[in-house]
Formats: sequence, C-alpha cells, structure tokens
Amino acid sequence: MTTPAPSEVFVHHVLFYTHAAASAADRAQLLEGLQQLQRIPGIQLAHIGTPAATDRTVIDRTYTYSWLCLFASAADELHYQQHPLHDDFRSRYARYWEKVVIYDAVGPTS
Amino acid sequence: MTTPAPSEVFVHHVLFYTHAAASAADRAQLLEGLQQLQRIPGIQLAHIGTPAATDRTVIDRTYTYSWLCLFASAADELHYQQHPLHDDFRSRYARYWEKVVIYDAVGPTS
Repeated sequence: MTTPAPSEVFVHHVLFYTHAAASAADRAQLLEGLQQLQRIPGIQLAHIGTPAATDRTVIDRTYTYSWLCLFASAADELHYQQHPLHDDFRSRYARYWEKVVIYDAVGPTS
Repeated sequence: MTTPAPSEVFVHHVLFYTHAAASAADRAQLLEGLQQLQRIPGIQLAHIGTPAATDRTVIDRTYTYSWLCLFASAADELHYQQHPLHDDFRSRYARYWEKVVIYDAVGPTS
C-alpha cells in the first residue's frame, strides 16, 4: 500500500515597493486595491501584511505591502491572474508601486 | 457595536538559494532539513515549494526552495526561531545554501 502524495499548493507571494515619494494616502490607495483583489474567487487563503518588527540582515524590510495568496492548483492561480478584478487592480493601482517582486512556489503543505 | 479587527497572522517566508555547484544530493539534503523544521510546534501552516512554471520578468525563479510558514503571533515565530530544531537546522544545513532572503509580514488573513 502506498501513501498518497500530499496535495500540492500554489503559493503566490508579491512584495510591493512604493515610490520613495509615496504619501500615506498613496499607500492607503494601494491597500484598498489589495483588499479588492481578495474578492477574486478561488483564493484559498489571502494575507495582506506589512514588515514585521523582526530585523536581521537577511530580512528585507523595505517593501510596503506583502500580498500572499494560496491556491489549490496552478490553474486556479492562472484564473486569478486573468480575472477582471485583477485587470482592474493593475489598471487602477499600478501607479502606486515602483517595483514588485514575485515568488510563485508549488509544493506540499503541512 | 464595533466589529472586532480580524486577527493578525505572522508570515515568515524564506527563499533559499543553493550554490551554483550544488548537486542533486546537496539539494535533497536541504529539503530534508526543511522537512525537519516542519516539526517545530506552533507553526499554523508550513509550505515547502520549488519555483512554479509561471515565468514573467517580475517573478524570481532563481531560488531553490521556498519555505513559508504562518504563525498566530510574533511570539510564536520567535519561539520557532529559538527552538532547538531550528538551531540544529542552521548548524547542520547552512552549508547547503549560498544566500537566503526573508520576508516577515504581519497582517490579517481572509
């Protein structure tokens, strides 16, 4: 008898870096955009974060928002990328960030 | 009546970059180390991933392993950092990576 492989989860993690001259209102706008993104169906878990208090040399604390979402499959993540709310997010909110860094990772959870 | 704030979750995301000369056996060793880390109590959710097939300019696909874990609080994450299994991981497996990048983010989930 073989043990079935644990199911794989698709992790999509985006770090948003706002412009140096961004105001508190600009950052609030971007946060509002991320809150809209959460409404896209198929997201298993979404997390909107800001840098924690932890501070070691290997920790990047220079981003403004961390947007993490988990999907049951790569197909679900593709569906998210292609959803009209995602298009809307890009067209309305891209002005608020200077840089994004994305990590997409697939593997088991425990 | 006020709505209680959603509870905050501590996201700890580590990207491990192995040495250019790392062998498949070296990478397997590091994976074994991450599997040991999962045993530390207090982790709400752990995910061990490798780069997904998605490939856009803003996506970093150069890491070897993504190690993501969620905690109920910053205190739980600190406890994890100080756990003997974490010390053991560092002392036994640090030889297998060349670089790590860490994002610690605090905020609500949905």
